[in-house]
Amino acid sequence: MPTAAVLGSAGYTGQETLDRVLHHPDLEVLALGSDSQAGQPASALDPRLARNGSLPALVSNDEALSSGADVIFCCLSNERAAALEPPPTGIVVDLSGAHRIADTSLYEQWYGFVHPKPESQADWCYALPELRPPTGRLIANPGCYVTAAVLALAPLRGEIDPATVVVDAKSGVSGAGRTPSEATIAGAVLENLKPYSIGRYRHLLEMEMMLGFAPTFVPHLLPVRRGLLATCYVNGIAAERARALLEAAYEGSEVVTGLPGGVMPEIGRVVHTDGAELAVFADPPSGRTIVIAAEDNLGKGAAGQAVQNANIALGLSETTGLRLEGVRV
Amino acid sequence: MPTAAVLGSAGYTGQETLDRVLHHPDLEVLALGSDSQAGQPASALDPRLARNGSLPALVSNDEALSSGADVIFCCLSNERAAALEPPPTGIVVDLSGAHRIADTSLYEQWYGFVHPKPESQADWCYALPELRPPTGRLIANPGCYVTAAVLALAPLRGEIDPATVVVDAKSGVSGAGRTPSEATIAGAVLENLKPYSIGRYRHLLEMEMMLGFAPTFVPHLLPVRRGLLATCYVNGIAAERARALLEAAYEGSEVVTGLPGGVMPEIGRVVHTDGAELAVFADPPSGRTIVIAAEDNLGKGAAGQAVQNANIALGLSETTGLRLEGVRV
Amino acid sequence: MPTAAVLGSAGYTGQETLDRVLHHPDLEVLALGSDSQAGQPASALDPRLARNGSLPALVSNDEALSSGADVIFCCLSNERAAALEPPPTGIVVDLSGAHRIADTSLYEQWYGFVHPKPESQADWCYALPELRPPTGRLIANPGCYVTAAVLALAPLRGEIDPATVVVDAKSGVSGAGRTPSEATIAGAVLENLKPYSIGRYRHLLEMEMMLGFAPTFVPHLLPVRRGLLATCYVNGIAAERARALLEAAYEGSEVVTGLPGGVMPEIGRVVHTDGAELAVFADPPSGRTIVIAAEDNLGKGAAGQAVQNANIALGLSETTGLRLEGVRV
Amino acid sequence: MPTAAVLGSAGYTGQETLDRVLHHPDLEVLALGSDSQAGQPASALDPRLARNGSLPALVSNDEALSSGADVIFCCLSNERAAALEPPPTGIVVDLSGAHRIADTSLYEQWYGFVHPKPESQADWCYALPELRPPTGRLIANPGCYVTAAVLALAPLRGEIDPATVVVDAKSGVSGAGRTPSEATIAGAVLENLKPYSIGRYRHLLEMEMMLGFAPTFVPHLLPVRRGLLATCYVNGIAAERARALLEAAYEGSEVVTGLPGGVMPEIGRVVHTDGAELAVFADPPSGRTIVIAAEDNLGKGAAGQAVQNANIALGLSETTGLRLEGVRV
Repeated sequence: MPTAAVLGSAGYTGQETLDRVLHHPDLEVLALGSDSQAGQPASALDPRLARNGSLPALVSNDEALSSGADVIFCCLSNERAAALEPPPTGIVVDLSGAHRIADTSLYEQWYGFVHPKPESQADWCYALPELRPPTGRLIANPGCYVTAAVLALAPLRGEIDPATVVVDAKSGVSGAGRTPSEATIAGAVLENLKPYSIGRYRHLLEMEMMLGFAPTFVPHLLPVRRGLLATCYVNGIAAERARALLEAAYEGSEVVTGLPGGVMPEIGRVVHTDGAELAVFADPPSGRTIVIAAEDNLGKGAAGQAVQNANIALGLSETTGLRLEGVRV
Repeated sequence: MPTAAVLGSAGYTGQETLDRVLHHPDLEVLALGSDSQAGQPASALDPRLARNGSLPALVSNDEALSSGADVIFCCLSNERAAALEPPPTGIVVDLSGAHRIADTSLYEQWYGFVHPKPESQADWCYALPELRPPTGRLIANPGCYVTAAVLALAPLRGEIDPATVVVDAKSGVSGAGRTPSEATIAGAVLENLKPYSIGRYRHLLEMEMMLGFAPTFVPHLLPVRRGLLATCYVNGIAAERARALLEAAYEGSEVVTGLPGGVMPEIGRVVHTDGAELAVFADPPSGRTIVIAAEDNLGKGAAGQAVQNANIALGLSETTGLRLEGVRV
Repeated sequence: MPTAAVLGSAGYTGQETLDRVLHHPDLEVLALGSDSQAGQPASALDPRLARNGSLPALVSNDEALSSGADVIFCCLSNERAAALEPPPTGIVVDLSGAHRIADTSLYEQWYGFVHPKPESQADWCYALPELRPPTGRLIANPGCYVTAAVLALAPLRGEIDPATVVVDAKSGVSGAGRTPSEATIAGAVLENLKPYSIGRYRHLLEMEMMLGFAPTFVPHLLPVRRGLLATCYVNGIAAERARALLEAAYEGSEVVTGLPGGVMPEIGRVVHTDGAELAVFADPPSGRTIVIAAEDNLGKGAAGQAVQNANIALGLSETTGLRLEGVRV
Repeated sequence: MPTAAVLGSAGYTGQETLDRVLHHPDLEVLALGSDSQAGQPASALDPRLARNGSLPALVSNDEALSSGADVIFCCLSNERAAALEPPPTGIVVDLSGAHRIADTSLYEQWYGFVHPKPESQADWCYALPELRPPTGRLIANPGCYVTAAVLALAPLRGEIDPATVVVDAKSGVSGAGRTPSEATIAGAVLENLKPYSIGRYRHLLEMEMMLGFAPTFVPHLLPVRRGLLATCYVNGIAAERARALLEAAYEGSEVVTGLPGGVMPEIGRVVHTDGAELAVFADPPSGRTIVIAAEDNLGKGAAGQAVQNANIALGLSETTGLRLEGVRV
């Protein structure tokens, strides 16, 4: 059975990735990296893990990186991930932003650090399975906002008027990671809604790469633990045409659900899943079409998509181990 | 001292209005109407009111209507309010939608009932104090979504391109009132975000009245008790110009705060107040300008604005009794 | 493969049960009952189900009851479930309270209806797998509050002083079901905490049955979607002794986790799982011992336990299809 | 008019205190201290303050301390406040725990620092207005948990059996202050409930001082921004007797409301107020009496009580400037 290592396994995306690997019928945990918790048993991450006798103890991220695992999930910070020296063989799925942008000169401005390894950036492929499956062993996993917006808009490319596109997005707090900050303490989030980072160009670079243009994009921080919804406004395409293009794009997909007429996407139905849902609405007075995408920022927006990418790269069935079926209260 | 009556005092807007009247230095409660609680002491609304020896017991809404109060706040349902026969003298502020739309033939389609009193609709004036102060004694108080969008956009009229305007709005659950429904039970709201009623044309009619055009409008239900944020996207005006127009429009206002550069509007700062806050952002790549408005849907979006309108109609200082100052955790 | 029917599949416990059955490797859905949605396809419950071609359409609860399924999960209201005529063969797991209390004369006072079938009440066995596994084919599944309190306290019976026991419990809103009410609309739940039904004797009857005594019990409604925590205070036993008894009681259990020293039970770690967690704390000044239990009210407190009971009754492995492993963000 | 200074005006209790001073008809802001924001205009705390032309700019806490204000509200950390050198005249209300415990040798163990000024601890009086009004100019303001528990229990002293008392308390996150930490980031708080610091002896010392005994005390962190509820269990007194004692103790109080029979205390009704509410319930089977207290941890539990104490010390009407009346949605 293929083996997996998780770097940064004590963070939100690290834990979510580990959780999927643990439930994956065709992956086995070989190494768990966490610089802050190296030396602890795996149950330091969650007391339930004490029942799993086969889990290795936590090691440093460097040790996990060189563990020889068939697939390495890198759940480190952008800067830390950028400095990563991939092992000579095996698959690496990087959930950070470090390997998403081809032009590494942009990192200083948009990520706040000089990219330490511009020479090997081209070795990485950016992969969003439904639209651009992985083509190599080093995989840059898309960001959560980008995944939602691109799933909604990419199939409409060429027909919509790029200059008209607005993406108004709302995300739960886990998207900001586990490091405490003034913006993410509960007293600043509960009973609140706040837009932030208007023009997050690091996200726009990814959107431009996948769409051919950068929309106007405003993210808002929601008082929910997880979940993301992107409300996308476009001109130049009729709602029925947009619906047809999206249905064609995701036909047969077990991951992306086109909702039937009249059903609204909602965060509550996609959290704790690895799927996304889409719906299209007409706005007759303006001739505008509205496409709304919902996903779990930690599922399809991070760990679920990472496992999906790993499945493809490993030659497994694409959705093995993903959480896609069922009903949701 | 002028006297006030509140019809529908057991609902959300009724209670909020009563609360403001109770703290108002120049208004005295004369009658409290509630058909469901008529006959009960005022403390049935809140046990603290038992300490207030001068409060009348609850009476039927009809009795409160004919109480002879100098100002009557009508906090009834749209349909109930539409049938209201105003007293021959005195001010009436209707917080419902019953008297907002001049063309009463539109009520059947957009409000779900045939307007029972089309002949007297013209007696009512629609009043949003900063932009269109009341001009008569029968006052239609604006809706919460409309207040936010119109405060953000009306001063830009004439310069923005109407066809480009998108209003993506998010509101807390108290905006849906106190009547239990499947959409507003906590299990459907917590850890969720859901768009609804895409194209709420009843709101668009009001916006069109105040703006001269109807924007594309998508409301979302937030998992917060109160608070509303409208993110408005426009083309045709530079951000600096928009900022200048808004500053000019609300210069000297104690109700509408233009935020300094870099400060984001947020619901958490305006809830439990009667103010609104606005900020303008440039989106250089698209040339689009983003105007964001935040308010408490029950404050500036309902009861606070109703008292503000009543103050003007009574000849009192406009902001007497409003909650506008201070700092907010 | 054994077949399953779910009655009341559109309610919270019905949906959660169906979700577990769908993911259960050894159960197949034979019938989905819902009186309100009979005739609709299964995807009326959740649009994702449209991808599952083998799911039957919704039928009336009576039809589902007589479907011939090997196990019937009854997720109906107390009163409706009490009138149920079980099929002559097959397992029935009733998630309601209708078959929990042996003395049916108590239903009028504590459940608000006269029990319609006292003569067959003795055919049902009350089953909480870790402490009292099912002994027959008609199984009364315990309530969520009772499950938490009994898991915490039953192993200590005989040593603790019954007169000293206090259970202070807190539950998420899904425990109140899906029917809208004034108490459960989001405006009454968000940013709130409220005790209710002090002395819920219907629950105390169950606790007395399992513990031999009824504790003092105060439930509180939490502003969370799901999850339940019971803080139990007892005298007469040292913390170490209590810990040893609990460890012995749940040794080898994959469902109930005794937390290591210093780790606090928390709702956030058990929601969306079928497990429970327990921890014991000493309060030296008072000599009191505190036992805290956390569970998902819809998991171990309802659907998860129902499947666990069904597994036992079907002769399957007890935890098949349950959600017990992994890490939780 | 008496003047006030606020030290630590950028923290939660500092802002809440400032907000009350701003609305206080008989107090004027003389100085605003904040070491992190000294030199900024007051509007750095809240953009609305820019409209208030009479507010001084922020200064260091030392400068604010020596500003000559008639009353100084000290909203600093415990350790910082303990080192404070009060000015020779004027009132100081310390909202921290630094001056609450007479035996300063206990600070090392329970507060984590050696008290730097044991010699002057006796100059401070601990004041909870309803039960122990301030007797000097240096006032230690009670903690939020202690206020709720003591309001519920102190009037019953002498009749209840101290050994039986359990206080199960639940507080919103603002009680933990504004400094980001792993325990208070929104991702750890939302959709969660977690007990913590079982046996917070620093609080027990205060309770013991006011009650003559220390109850068993378990605090829980609620997913709400503000609000606190304490569910207190006692033996040795009948519910009617407890109700009579509490009514007598708070007769005529505008701050503490005894709820009528059948009305449950709830956080939602007391947040954003400076009042507290109490209710008493009988638990016939056990003979136990349950007293429940609700308050806003930042209101009666901190800033409201501080202003109440200052009012008394200044010879003003006790409730001037407090938020006590009205109705609450």
